[in-house]
Amino acid sequence: MLQIISMSKNKSASQPLLGKEFQLIQRYFSEHQQTRRSDLLLGIGDDCAIVAPRKQANLAFSIDTLISGVHFPDNTAADAIAYKALAVNLSDLAAMGAEPAWFTLALSLPDHHQWSEQHRSNWLKDFSKALFSLAKEHNIQLIGGDTTAGSILSITIQVCGYLEKNTGLTRSGAQPDDIIAVTGKLGGASVGLDLLLETHNNAYNSLSENDKQQAIHALNYPQARIQEGLYLKHIAHSALDLSDGLLSDLGHILKASQVGAQLYLAKLPLADALSCLSDEQAWNKALSGGDDYELCFTIAPRHWTRVREKFPNCVAIGRVTKEETVHLITSDGMNYQTQQKGYDHFG
Amino acid sequence: MLQIISMSKNKSASQPLLGKEFQLIQRYFSEHQQTRRSDLLLGIGDDCAIVAPRKQANLAFSIDTLISGVHFPDNTAADAIAYKALAVNLSDLAAMGAEPAWFTLALSLPDHHQWSEQHRSNWLKDFSKALFSLAKEHNIQLIGGDTTAGSILSITIQVCGYLEKNTGLTRSGAQPDDIIAVTGKLGGASVGLDLLLETHNNAYNSLSENDKQQAIHALNYPQARIQEGLYLKHIAHSALDLSDGLLSDLGHILKASQVGAQLYLAKLPLADALSCLSDEQAWNKALSGGDDYELCFTIAPRHWTRVREKFPNCVAIGRVTKEETVHLITSDGMNYQTQQKGYDHFG
Repeated sequence: MLQIISMSKNKSASQPLLGKEFQLIQRYFSEHQQTRRSDLLLGIGDDCAIVAPRKQANLAFSIDTLISGVHFPDNTAADAIAYKALAVNLSDLAAMGAEPAWFTLALSLPDHHQWSEQHRSNWLKDFSKALFSLAKEHNIQLIGGDTTAGSILSITIQVCGYLEKNTGLTRSGAQPDDIIAVTGKLGGASVGLDLLLETHNNAYNSLSENDKQQAIHALNYPQARIQEGLYLKHIAHSALDLSDGLLSDLGHILKASQVGAQLYLAKLPLADALSCLSDEQAWNKALSGGDDYELCFTIAPRHWTRVREKFPNCVAIGRVTKEETVHLITSDGMNYQTQQKGYDHFG
Repeated sequence: MLQIISMSKNKSASQPLLGKEFQLIQRYFSEHQQTRRSDLLLGIGDDCAIVAPRKQANLAFSIDTLISGVHFPDNTAADAIAYKALAVNLSDLAAMGAEPAWFTLALSLPDHHQWSEQHRSNWLKDFSKALFSLAKEHNIQLIGGDTTAGSILSITIQVCGYLEKNTGLTRSGAQPDDIIAVTGKLGGASVGLDLLLETHNNAYNSLSENDKQQAIHALNYPQARIQEGLYLKHIAHSALDLSDGLLSDLGHILKASQVGAQLYLAKLPLADALSCLSDEQAWNKALSGGDDYELCFTIAPRHWTRVREKFPNCVAIGRVTKEETVHLITSDGMNYQTQQKGYDHFG
């Protein structure tokens, strides 16, 4: 549609952007794509994309927005933004046990007063390169998009994936005595954010440069656990991905399933970057730090060994209880009280 | 994921929004929905929505973003924003001949420094009411969403619809001697925008208050021509929806189909609000004004009578030519030259 740039009364100012918009989409998002799926009948460039889904499969949809200064620091590199914008959506597919297929992208870029044409061009090049690299890795194809010149950088991606009939890892299937597990280390992304925002500087003084870089990498390049999700969809009782923090997100499973949990603090797989913190600080990071994008799932104990053999990164951290409360258990069997925010979501 | 509000170093400031976000989504976008589709297996509230598409059907996808101050004036009412955000996406499905099924919504709202909680709550109430009313009309169901607090109001909607196998109105099928037609009057939305922006005030002095309101209504409440699209998909050779202006958009069909066009200026269906303009001013509005969201299609002459009988709102405005140029023909058969911007897109 027509754009009214900054509500200027000279509407013709908006027109050149339209021509550029088409060129940009054409140049970076149509030509540079590396994924070529046979179930896509018509890709970018018409009013709609057309896909021919596999017979008998269900489809899973998810949508997520990342906004500069809200979800990532303003100075984050274009390739990290692209990677994360797609990865967090892939992570939702993973949490459902779905196989990635197609995605759409709505990209809002700062206008020409904020970004020069050169900067925009460089940014789009880096962004699309990283986006298509991750897309290729997961065989997911960009099928449509909308690029607008707004006043703030914002990326919305919607993913769609295949889900076998009668499968799908929801939040509501957890059962008493299930093992609660996660697919990897926790708390790293949260340290990465502290480091980028230069908060709690003193706490990280003793951290090696390598650990610091790893923490920032965990924040910017979360791993979508697609393979784990595809495997778990046949045997796990419930799952979700950890975006807001373990306690907060596990709370969704417990609430939806009307169960409670015991978590063993000593079992929490702590990110390397937490090594410089006290036990209590590290637990709190692992329990409440956001942006880890590991899966958290619950599974009957009899299946645990095969999961662990197939995916050694998976770690059991607790048990589902019939009683609808959450107990954090220390290594000496005591109840631990936390003041962390994620707790609110149990309410 | 966690939000970093305004990159403040006090991260806890962002946390209360997370709780509210869930409440908002729950309250306005899950409970108030009026559409209930049987092909939706799992709706809002998990990592993904799950749908069970009809066997043998293809699916059409489209995504569009509307940003405050860019795509609509900042003071536009919430219900008009909701209506338009969904309507422009439905219009893309219409242009393809697809039947609406599901949509997702990414909503970015101004943060609490700009919008009070009361304002946000009222806005969401009006927005969701208008959104679900239009959704019900077209039997399309909201299946997922993401609400974020950014610094600017932005709405991204992705629609998905059914498309019968071996149908689909693309831009590339226009054939020489096809009739070029549109599904309704042109130029009204553009006058509506002029009126809202208070540009060209003098030109509209003689317009009645009723005509002015109609023009603004045309801008804010575009009609998605779903029924026309569903009918035309069997017989039209090409189609798209008019978002950027007739000349610009028709240019996409002509380029994709490697053909040209003769347009008869006297046949252009002019919006009532153009009555106060000179012939030339009115033509230019109809040729280049954006946001009309009528369909433009090309069709073999032998089918024209039945289209016109079924949809009296459809008007023939020209012919497809083998020669890859565009001629605007006046009522006395002369070539008319326009300086309008839409022309650029033929390049």
